[in-house]
Amino acid sequence: MSLRLTILGCHSATPRSLTYTSSQFLEMNNECCLIDCGEGTQRQLRKYKIKFSRIKYIFISHLHGDHFFGLIGLISTFSLLGRNSELHIYGPKGLKEIILLQLKLSKSWVDFPLHFHELSSSESELILENDRIKVYTIPLKHRIYTNGFLFTEQPLPRKLNMKEISKYKEIDICDYQNLKNGKDFTLTDGKIIPNKDLTIDPAEPLRYGYCSDTEYHEEIIPLIENIDLLYHEATFLEEHRDLAEKTKHSTAYQAAQIAHKAKVKRLLLGHYSSRYTSLDLFLEEASILFKNTELAEAGNHIHLSN
Amino acid sequence: MSLRLTILGCHSATPRSLTYTSSQFLEMNNECCLIDCGEGTQRQLRKYKIKFSRIKYIFISHLHGDHFFGLIGLISTFSLLGRNSELHIYGPKGLKEIILLQLKLSKSWVDFPLHFHELSSSESELILENDRIKVYTIPLKHRIYTNGFLFTEQPLPRKLNMKEISKYKEIDICDYQNLKNGKDFTLTDGKIIPNKDLTIDPAEPLRYGYCSDTEYHEEIIPLIENIDLLYHEATFLEEHRDLAEKTKHSTAYQAAQIAHKAKVKRLLLGHYSSRYTSLDLFLEEASILFKNTELAEAGNHIHLSN
Repeated sequence: MSLRLTILGCHSATPRSLTYTSSQFLEMNNECCLIDCGEGTQRQLRKYKIKFSRIKYIFISHLHGDHFFGLIGLISTFSLLGRNSELHIYGPKGLKEIILLQLKLSKSWVDFPLHFHELSSSESELILENDRIKVYTIPLKHRIYTNGFLFTEQPLPRKLNMKEISKYKEIDICDYQNLKNGKDFTLTDGKIIPNKDLTIDPAEPLRYGYCSDTEYHEEIIPLIENIDLLYHEATFLEEHRDLAEKTKHSTAYQAAQIAHKAKVKRLLLGHYSSRYTSLDLFLEEASILFKNTELAEAGNHIHLSN
Repeated sequence: MSLRLTILGCHSATPRSLTYTSSQFLEMNNECCLIDCGEGTQRQLRKYKIKFSRIKYIFISHLHGDHFFGLIGLISTFSLLGRNSELHIYGPKGLKEIILLQLKLSKSWVDFPLHFHELSSSESELILENDRIKVYTIPLKHRIYTNGFLFTEQPLPRKLNMKEISKYKEIDICDYQNLKNGKDFTLTDGKIIPNKDLTIDPAEPLRYGYCSDTEYHEEIIPLIENIDLLYHEATFLEEHRDLAEKTKHSTAYQAAQIAHKAKVKRLLLGHYSSRYTSLDLFLEEASILFKNTELAEAGNHIHLSN
């Protein structure tokens, strides 16, 4: 089981010569998701040689342009490339209207099944579950309705404790799947061997939290406690805390506070304001409180496995 | 008086690693226009160091994504950059709805005057006239409602024929402006000196025609006769004439036919399909019929003066 995250863009507001706005490609347990889709995302997908057809799910945090202006172009390109597999888009209410209006006026109906899952709840909810992953919203606090997303692998099957199993001749290879699934074993004499005596706890499912855009918002902490990796926006440095408050963004230090209080394993900063020419101070500021901090930069690739 | 044209993107369908979709920056007689605005246009503007604030008019040919998906991002960036001067957008009916819906849902109202001029006529019409330029639509024939645009300088003032003028002591320097404007001069004895005896014809106003996307469409010829520069789409080569007909595009040879029949001075080809790895054959094919053909490529800069 593994998690592979590629940063496609991680700067705020507007694409510039050397920077791209928010987008990430996440491969978790063999399911491929795109998280946010700023203008130019399809260009970045090509640059990092990510096959368009692999994307099955797209998650849009909110309707500020730097998080979704690339979506209509990407959908159109899917169409031009002859996509026929289904695409699921999760995002705020209104996103469907924006996309369908443009498809209608350009007479560019797509030939693949396009499913919109519009979000409007202010509570965290399970929005996607299949055999491999689960995705929950993380309600954020920004100028407009915004969700982060928590991606988790489905629990791994229990590991067989072959040393213990070998003590029971009655347990056959055909029974292994039931044991992996947590079932107890009943001997022919009616005696029950508890599953925990025959199996070992598997590794914990990997979990990734994406939180952008948001002001400092402690209510998210219970949702992201102990996760393996947290991407948290850090638009400003502490010296511009006033701007962060005014625009409902976070500072690098505040992102570290959230990571620290939620006891996450790694913190990834991003969504930097263009006012800063160097990102070093972001790392420095967050690392004071939370050592395991890294800077997101386009092209970064993070691989976790359990 | 001059015309400066910078190609920002000239490939069809979808942005790729090395190519951008349709957009051009035109400076004519000191008025700055953007023609079409595919995704990534604002990136190209930065690359070619064109100040965003110079753009006063934007012309959108039609609502296929490769001609307008960059517009909402550009408008948002204008806003972020603190623009306060007015912006005029000319394009098909529906464009306003697309832009305003996105501004509304992102709660990103612009602070500058944003004027939409929606087009729906199937006849050529004068859509913009000021002291410096005039812009007419060129109705094209494509899969959806599409206009090309004819940009012309306002007529230049007549040139003074100082040799002739010096024969008349009564003509004072104060009268020069009237003569430049074409007025006759009346002597005190009542005799009228015709303007043509006192002035010389000025250079012809420069004219530029942008025609994309369209199938071969001879009806445009009277509108673009003898113009200084014609950009005509050439999505395909003759070997794919069937595809051109099916998709209502033109071949390089057909673009040359239009240029030849309209007796334009120069032809610029563009809107190439991505199926071609080299553009040399486009130039070759069109040049058979029309020698003065050039290939548009991103970053090309054409300067004409009279």
